[in-house]
Amino acid sequence: MTTTTDLCYLTLHELSSRIRTKALSPVEVTEAVLERIERLNPTLNAYLTVTAERALADARAAEGEIASGRYRGPLHGVPIGVKDLCATKGVRTTAASKILAGWVPDEDATVIQRLREAGAVIIGKLHLHEYAFGATGVNPHYGPARNPWDTGRITGGSSSGSGAAVAAGLCFAALGSDTGGSIRIPSSLCGIVGVKPTYGRVSLEGVVPLAWSLDHVGPMARSVRDCALVLETIAGHDPKDPSSAQAAVEDWVAGLDGGLRGLRIGVPVAYAYEQTQPDVAAVVHDAIATLERLGAEIKQLDLPVLQDYWLAASVVLIGEAAAYHQANMEQRPQDYGDDVRMRIQLGLDQKAVDYVRAARLRDEARRTCDQALLSEVDLLAMPTTIRTAVPIESLAKDDPTLGLTVLTAPFDLTGQPAISVPCGLTEAGLPVGLQLVGRRFDEGTVFRAAHAFETESGLSIGRPPVD
Amino acid sequence: MTTTTDLCYLTLHELSSRIRTKALSPVEVTEAVLERIERLNPTLNAYLTVTAERALADARAAEGEIASGRYRGPLHGVPIGVKDLCATKGVRTTAASKILAGWVPDEDATVIQRLREAGAVIIGKLHLHEYAFGATGVNPHYGPARNPWDTGRITGGSSSGSGAAVAAGLCFAALGSDTGGSIRIPSSLCGIVGVKPTYGRVSLEGVVPLAWSLDHVGPMARSVRDCALVLETIAGHDPKDPSSAQAAVEDWVAGLDGGLRGLRIGVPVAYAYEQTQPDVAAVVHDAIATLERLGAEIKQLDLPVLQDYWLAASVVLIGEAAAYHQANMEQRPQDYGDDVRMRIQLGLDQKAVDYVRAARLRDEARRTCDQALLSEVDLLAMPTTIRTAVPIESLAKDDPTLGLTVLTAPFDLTGQPAISVPCGLTEAGLPVGLQLVGRRFDEGTVFRAAHAFETESGLSIGRPPVD
Repeated sequence: MTTTTDLCYLTLHELSSRIRTKALSPVEVTEAVLERIERLNPTLNAYLTVTAERALADARAAEGEIASGRYRGPLHGVPIGVKDLCATKGVRTTAASKILAGWVPDEDATVIQRLREAGAVIIGKLHLHEYAFGATGVNPHYGPARNPWDTGRITGGSSSGSGAAVAAGLCFAALGSDTGGSIRIPSSLCGIVGVKPTYGRVSLEGVVPLAWSLDHVGPMARSVRDCALVLETIAGHDPKDPSSAQAAVEDWVAGLDGGLRGLRIGVPVAYAYEQTQPDVAAVVHDAIATLERLGAEIKQLDLPVLQDYWLAASVVLIGEAAAYHQANMEQRPQDYGDDVRMRIQLGLDQKAVDYVRAARLRDEARRTCDQALLSEVDLLAMPTTIRTAVPIESLAKDDPTLGLTVLTAPFDLTGQPAISVPCGLTEAGLPVGLQLVGRRFDEGTVFRAAHAFETESGLSIGRPPVD
Repeated sequence: MTTTTDLCYLTLHELSSRIRTKALSPVEVTEAVLERIERLNPTLNAYLTVTAERALADARAAEGEIASGRYRGPLHGVPIGVKDLCATKGVRTTAASKILAGWVPDEDATVIQRLREAGAVIIGKLHLHEYAFGATGVNPHYGPARNPWDTGRITGGSSSGSGAAVAAGLCFAALGSDTGGSIRIPSSLCGIVGVKPTYGRVSLEGVVPLAWSLDHVGPMARSVRDCALVLETIAGHDPKDPSSAQAAVEDWVAGLDGGLRGLRIGVPVAYAYEQTQPDVAAVVHDAIATLERLGAEIKQLDLPVLQDYWLAASVVLIGEAAAYHQANMEQRPQDYGDDVRMRIQLGLDQKAVDYVRAARLRDEARRTCDQALLSEVDLLAMPTTIRTAVPIESLAKDDPTLGLTVLTAPFDLTGQPAISVPCGLTEAGLPVGLQLVGRRFDEGTVFRAAHAFETESGLSIGRPPVD
């Protein structure tokens, strides 16, 4: 049993080395992961759909190709899960909603196509907050995803299943999406690495939208390197997506070992810590001391505007989401969960002038953040979430959304790349995430700094108590 | 008298050649223009403010610099008028509104700074539709600007004074602004050349906004070359304007003589002609035949989406304008003209979801137009306005706004550069404009084609009957 568990907890990078050298068979790995899903998913509720037969067929195909010398690269034969708002040809794609419960797309989303071309084995579709429109991951139609570190607690959302599955060894990487923090929040709360790339870096074509001007697709995995490997695969211009940027995809993995020496890292101290749960602040404080020990120059920054950016992001998000949901809200409002229906209604009631002002602030925010980063520092560092995972049963009394999104949503608005990397556990045994934010289209520096931190502090915070 | 009139009708290019060679003195020219303004402005109502003393001082300074060998370039010593929504330090800037009637800015707008650095003589502030929020140029606070071709008719707007002043020889070029067509419409109706550059090409800093995501500042003059000379002066990145692009400014004048041979020009036939006034259609038909005779390949294009783009542009425009005017509308609604107040109210009543859908369509429109232009043709050609200038007294019964903006507003939405160049007079003696639209940031091809057309068809359509 230990052997299979150890296998499932390999990093993607380790796994792909062994697959490339034929020390491990993609079929064997896929079987191990499927077995683990069968055992743990009834508790964790990470997968909404497991595509076992297709995955095994793909694994066999990968094995055959590799055996005959046609190795495609580091994702070849690697089991990967995808958030269930990425369209998958022939496989139901629910967005964890009742409304799309029966949808079986005719085409793969661009990101799915790119994973398939890289030889990845897509093992199933991962749970999410309904339509990605919420930060807890609790879902009225499909039940809550559960946090592997404490199954009575939320995973955070909206990429709840992605967070739980990666943390519990139910895949080697997952795709998430991030509109107000939905990759970074579950990464922080589940103790894994998650990357929101620069806006425009990864195609949104075929991904059910939440808010088109804030939506980002990105990787979640158990190491920084693994996230870089997946991002290199899915990134790049897509003429089918009007928001897709022309920026060239770099070899981020090659730059991982550059270290922290000479990097200036800004910490928006007052803002980041004032409202932060004390045990989270203590862990992040130590993490920033580690960055400094590794050679980074830490600068305290005054960025009170982040609070305005959070508000503007919320206004833009609900306005755009309401535009997408308006027809269904008129025809079948009862098919939405209460929380999502309430948010859509807020958006439908919103005035154009309020949206316009928020969108205008976005342009200023993008410029301000670019200039702050370009002139004063190379990266920003702060907690990803200012609180840890709350008990699922507490949600009826206490909405943790603000505390979960307050430091993530500003960078969906500004479009800059941001990573959440595990930086420790609280005394209660709950993971804490360190967020690093870089210049737009400079994922390289973000990966490099996060990798240096991760290497120094040990590859991960260990395995959650699910076995 | 004829001599002074001829002097005032020189093209900017001709004038600057004579100033450079000291055949003409900037002071003499400025005096001639001031005298002409004094004579004709009471009828045309083109200038709201004439800065005679400052202009003469600047002309004397230019003369001194040129005499001592410090010639700055083609705008040095040239009298230029600016639309009265460009902030001018120490000079009232009204936006032709009652609300800003007493505003005297502390700083020049970036475009004004650039004109001054080039040695231009800013001779006064030109009339406009109140806050640029209308296409007729008729104004309840300052009276209508009048069309030099028939002073009982509108100039078109919103850059009404710019159109009248350039057409009547009251300046050698003017700055206008274009949010739904406000440079191209008065250029078309007054028989001059006007250029809406690519969105982001010219700084908006210090320009009273109408709708920030659609606003463009650009030149209006009596020849294509003159517009290119002014655009080369005012274009270029401005860090103070968040919408300002990094694109390099090219030497458009140097490329003017490239001719039309080999250019593919698309004509959106069905759409452009179906609703067009028959005498306008006839003139534009001949103009397109001229383009073909000059070596262009004319292709008929089906672009029914232009109608959707017009609607989306309108929605975006009123939403953003309302956000800007909201506070004043709450505090002093009676200080707006009826038509502008009604439009602001429409914007205040607008739902965010409608704005969001229109903004989303813009992204698609930009892509569609780029792709149509890039793959099938190099330019689009069509009438600028599908009707000629209407009598001012007809406005009470008949709102011409749709007919004036239907072919201009789509390209404010898509952001592509567009020129209006005079292509003839109707039998009623009213000017008709030909619009040429290019790829984003490819003003060069637009200028080159318009210059070839203008050269073939005679430099202009002659002088309006104002002397």
